[in-house]
Amino acid sequence: MSEIVTAGILVIGDEILSGRTKDKNIGYIAEYLTNIGIDLKEVRVVADDEGAIIEALNALRSRYTYVFTTGGIGPTHDDITADSVAKAFGVGIDLHPEVVARFRQRFSEAELNEARLRMARIPDGAELIQSATILAPGFKLDNVIVMAGVPSIMQAMMDIVAPKLKSGVRMLSDSVRANAREGDIGSPLRAIAAAHPDTSIGSYPFLDENSKPNTNIVVRSRDADKLKAAMAAVQEMLAGLNLTR
Amino acid sequence: MSEIVTAGILVIGDEILSGRTKDKNIGYIAEYLTNIGIDLKEVRVVADDEGAIIEALNALRSRYTYVFTTGGIGPTHDDITADSVAKAFGVGIDLHPEVVARFRQRFSEAELNEARLRMARIPDGAELIQSATILAPGFKLDNVIVMAGVPSIMQAMMDIVAPKLKSGVRMLSDSVRANAREGDIGSPLRAIAAAHPDTSIGSYPFLDENSKPNTNIVVRSRDADKLKAAMAAVQEMLAGLNLTR
Repeated sequence: MSEIVTAGILVIGDEILSGRTKDKNIGYIAEYLTNIGIDLKEVRVVADDEGAIIEALNALRSRYTYVFTTGGIGPTHDDITADSVAKAFGVGIDLHPEVVARFRQRFSEAELNEARLRMARIPDGAELIQSATILAPGFKLDNVIVMAGVPSIMQAMMDIVAPKLKSGVRMLSDSVRANAREGDIGSPLRAIAAAHPDTSIGSYPFLDENSKPNTNIVVRSRDADKLKAAMAAVQEMLAGLNLTR
Repeated sequence: MSEIVTAGILVIGDEILSGRTKDKNIGYIAEYLTNIGIDLKEVRVVADDEGAIIEALNALRSRYTYVFTTGGIGPTHDDITADSVAKAFGVGIDLHPEVVARFRQRFSEAELNEARLRMARIPDGAELIQSATILAPGFKLDNVIVMAGVPSIMQAMMDIVAPKLKSGVRMLSDSVRANAREGDIGSPLRAIAAAHPDTSIGSYPFLDENSKPNTNIVVRSRDADKLKAAMAAVQEMLAGLNLTR
């Protein structure tokens, strides 16, 4: 049986916790990981606070195959992710010669100030995540992937790092619109879920185009046959429903 | 000196971790709490898994003044938040007579099935969060506020529960568009941050309308005078910049 590959996400940034910036990275990474067969198990959001970052990172990296962080790798004083990651691993951190060399090509001597050089500080032993269009590089240290907080840059970094990750058997999913209220299908759905181990059945209420309560049912499994059998049971249940609505 | 009131958010739901549903609640609650003087310190997202919910809830409720949960209070088998909260607190859980009475007014005998009755299961000692437009009630147990995952319902619940919460001195904030690249202001900004304790200065890069790298600087403080002084220093620094761009 193939290995289950798991992940956690650590979002770093005061601006998310204050509500000033609305995170767009969690949903993107979640969907990305699902598509490459990695199970996202947990997300944490913490402030630009070294203690909080280290504690959350150590909790997540010991539990999951991979941890993806976003935010805090820019040139300003509130960008403390690289230093915090180095401390969490107990390794040194210094200017990375390759990054400094790239910066020298890109910036004038006047521009290459202390702030910009901070973006070249990479923990010892980390592998760079960079490309021609990425200014401050991300990096991968052991099972931790450190990425930018700006969505377009984070997305470019995911594309670079993803081919290097091991992935598990992809979680398959199928969904159906119930045309029923969640409360009308809760009991039969529970019975179907119990009768179909190795599948996960989710029920998501929504208001449909007529403002009527409706429900999407999502069946997930790594086994195509089990997924098909569970979805068939759901369809049969829905077809037989004597709806009261 | 007034008390600092803190909070954590616990988002519960497989659909967020799979990426199928993009969370809209974290940003909303974060902004709401900032506006009422409560500091959001941490967010966690976990699956519809009793062990994961209990562990995260216990971690958050012991650390912060309040914990706000979203998701998992509907009528289906994957809605396990109320039971998990009861277990986390070590209290019983049973049908709440007031909720059952409301359901009897709203539903026919045929509609009031086992699934719908699950939504009336409330941990012992909890205070209901409900209104005429809310079907499944939320509840407040000790410092934990349990809310729906559907954004419109969650938002209605926030409005009901917010007046009952203690709030601290509100965090004030002011921001300025730097018209400078983050790397050009990193060093002076660090000096300003160091010279202005009791303020928090954030730097947020963005691409402006000419696709040029630009930066928003946000200064936050509970003290209006300190905020003003720090912002004045930022403005002075920006005015004096001999920009290379």
